[in-house]
Amino acid sequence: MATAPIRILGLDPGLRRTGWGVIEAMGTRLTFIACGTVMPPEEGELARRLAVLHTELAAVLRIYAPDEAAVEETFVNMNPASTLKLGQARGVVMVTPALAGVPVAEYAALLVKKTVVGAGRAEKAQIRMMMKVLLPQADFKTDDAADALAVAVTHAQHRGMAALKAQAAARLDARAVAR
Amino acid sequence: MATAPIRILGLDPGLRRTGWGVIEAMGTRLTFIACGTVMPPEEGELARRLAVLHTELAAVLRIYAPDEAAVEETFVNMNPASTLKLGQARGVVMVTPALAGVPVAEYAALLVKKTVVGAGRAEKAQIRMMMKVLLPQADFKTDDAADALAVAVTHAQHRGMAALKAQAAARLDARAVAR
Repeated sequence: MATAPIRILGLDPGLRRTGWGVIEAMGTRLTFIACGTVMPPEEGELARRLAVLHTELAAVLRIYAPDEAAVEETFVNMNPASTLKLGQARGVVMVTPALAGVPVAEYAALLVKKTVVGAGRAEKAQIRMMMKVLLPQADFKTDDAADALAVAVTHAQHRGMAALKAQAAARLDARAVAR
Repeated sequence: MATAPIRILGLDPGLRRTGWGVIEAMGTRLTFIACGTVMPPEEGELARRLAVLHTELAAVLRIYAPDEAAVEETFVNMNPASTLKLGQARGVVMVTPALAGVPVAEYAALLVKKTVVGAGRAEKAQIRMMMKVLLPQADFKTDDAADALAVAVTHAQHRGMAALKAQAAARLDARAVAR
């Protein structure tokens, strides 16, 4: 069965640093396309900083035209003020692909680690190492970009399983109809 | 001194309901222009719900063309999951005027209540009542829209004080230079 590759944008949101990574998935084969880190100015009006985050991510979407996006669902163990800040950045990071017509999936940070490293308690260094193994061309310069690629890889794996499940369900339905 | 009226958009962010209210401030005189509540669909992908929030607020900005916007800085006393959700909506609510080139000020909920009711522990009913007194034409249908108008009124009052302080500082500077 010949299928077109799916281009996935992974995103690791943060107000000071948002990592992004683009890969292509063709069945189980993954190819690195690009990655980077958006760093809005640390000073000034919050709304302006969020606008820079949006504008830079919108440029990434225009340049790399992903089919689907995936965002890390960060485990919340921070103080309320930090959680609110992360939420604000995350809202902008999620709305940007949606406004470009790209569907956005969410994955728990624990699932991302389990998928790419095999353990939920993986360290940043282990994620970087596994990204180098899975995507040898990847030239990430920050942990955020590596995390974003890990989210993209997680989506590639789980969207495939979701698609297989849907196919299996369709076959069962077809058989049920045939009977 | 003849000055043009300033048009202010007040915003009370929430994922299920975001209140908005537009007023004009001419010195201490306030005029109600419009208000409403954006209610994104309660179901479906979070990113899509945030996109609806953005699109509807962007329409409000196009229609009423405010000069300045103000957002309530909600006091954070919720559980982390609710705080993250509010943050996500708040990020989208703040970035939307910023992308339209409108500066966005933030006011603590306590200051909003003190400004419009005179007490930091004001009830929703008191805010509604004071909005009816200050803006007799206001036809708000939700607490969120009334709160948004209260934020706009707070900005009208505090931006004026900030402007007076800046004028006074400029006069002092001018005198210092004259000496």
